[in-house]
Amino acid sequence: MSKPPERRQITGFSNPVVKYLRSLRDKKHRKQERAFLAEGLRLLTDARETGHVPQMLVMAGTRDPHPLIDALERDVVAAGGEVIETTPDILAKITGKSNPQAVAGVFEEFDTSLSAIDRASAPLWLVAQDLRDPGNLGTMLRTGDAVGAGGLILIDDCADPFSVEAVRASMGAIFTQRIARARWEEFLPWLRSGAGQLVAASLRDAVPYRGAPYAAPCFILVGNESQGLPQEYEAACDLRVTMPMRGRADSLNAAVAGAVLAYEVLAGLQETAAPT
Amino acid sequence: MSKPPERRQITGFSNPVVKYLRSLRDKKHRKQERAFLAEGLRLLTDARETGHVPQMLVMAGTRDPHPLIDALERDVVAAGGEVIETTPDILAKITGKSNPQAVAGVFEEFDTSLSAIDRASAPLWLVAQDLRDPGNLGTMLRTGDAVGAGGLILIDDCADPFSVEAVRASMGAIFTQRIARARWEEFLPWLRSGAGQLVAASLRDAVPYRGAPYAAPCFILVGNESQGLPQEYEAACDLRVTMPMRGRADSLNAAVAGAVLAYEVLAGLQETAAPT
Repeated sequence: MSKPPERRQITGFSNPVVKYLRSLRDKKHRKQERAFLAEGLRLLTDARETGHVPQMLVMAGTRDPHPLIDALERDVVAAGGEVIETTPDILAKITGKSNPQAVAGVFEEFDTSLSAIDRASAPLWLVAQDLRDPGNLGTMLRTGDAVGAGGLILIDDCADPFSVEAVRASMGAIFTQRIARARWEEFLPWLRSGAGQLVAASLRDAVPYRGAPYAAPCFILVGNESQGLPQEYEAACDLRVTMPMRGRADSLNAAVAGAVLAYEVLAGLQETAAPT
Repeated sequence: MSKPPERRQITGFSNPVVKYLRSLRDKKHRKQERAFLAEGLRLLTDARETGHVPQMLVMAGTRDPHPLIDALERDVVAAGGEVIETTPDILAKITGKSNPQAVAGVFEEFDTSLSAIDRASAPLWLVAQDLRDPGNLGTMLRTGDAVGAGGLILIDDCADPFSVEAVRASMGAIFTQRIARARWEEFLPWLRSGAGQLVAASLRDAVPYRGAPYAAPCFILVGNESQGLPQEYEAACDLRVTMPMRGRADSLNAAVAGAVLAYEVLAGLQETAAPT
């Protein structure tokens, strides 16, 4: 076991660092600070392995030692960051969970402008409009990672991708998927300024989703959880596809619909790319 | 507008009916009372249209009138149930949300024994093992409804399908999908006592999920959110299939994995059934 590097001890609830860390559970403060919290050794290890070193690492002084924690600490210190050791009670206030083994990191928010997206870097992209549930948002990031999507583009008023809930549901994909945020009025001209097929699940003027003529880079557009997509957004799509709906309901959970469609697009693009 | 039928007025927080209704947010009490809460006019209308009349209907006296509420009230009274009119504050305590337009119904829990499942009644069934998140559980019910599954079989220690969160996420599918609960030791002999193909997503000894030889009745087995399926459960499957995993992670959200697989099974069964 290597000796832990220098840790800063914080034992008071009123310490400004504690206040800062707690404030990152709140969207307004995340935006001000351009930083977000990620919790859990697995998530922090995913971050590290994809080159994301936290600015600050926080854990209880009573935490069991772990070689991955040692590695994280070294990286944080080497990058000029800080390692904070605190009490289980204060840690619980920061993470919102009473797990004395918890570990949390503070990361700089990524650039989420559309211009940071290189559409040619992946065959498909997920696009969500007014997606309100942070769990659904994180799940879409996770699905995007699995299907080899380039990232997730958030249109209009979506949940915050840097919320603790979204980061957790992403299971590390927050660090591997590109994320952009834009209004529809900004997204559509950007999309049309280059190659890109916009696809949505729809009941209007649609072809069966299975075997539809998908083309890369394919942008899969998923609508709001309760309202679905506005009609004019659907109309702007290059391809509208319909999925079987055998039951009483005529819709799926937004993250589920996106995933079923993404796997179909992935298969379709592979068939197109395969030598005949 | 028809005149509302007789309503019982309850204005005190300490009223036993209020205590009863609040207790239904708790699993132990739901089990004791064999009853559960469903909230929202849309969910209650779905229930009514599938022949499920609440034993009790609750709303604020200040609620706006609505023809669907009138219809629900008439059904409840005709079936010998009760309509409760209360204050917005008490209603908020019952529903857990401060929406004075809310409406909630109390329903009898369904029979969730395996023997109540008629496997021949549907070409596919969803099966979840140790599924802990009520949102995932409700989402699987919703997906089951969409793909024409017969229902959801809950193996070992799953979340409670009658929790408010699961009922809400099901978007009404709690009333259309059969639900059974069983231990694995009980489920496997039941499955083997008749026709049925058990299928799981797996990384071990698996064939590509796309175009795999699915056969009805097909039982799609999904494992716990963080642990996946125990190896012996996978080994007991008739078919192990693998889905592309292009990213860093080697797994999908459980409800997403179930849905992608369910849509593939649905398509596969249709191709098999189609005249050649």
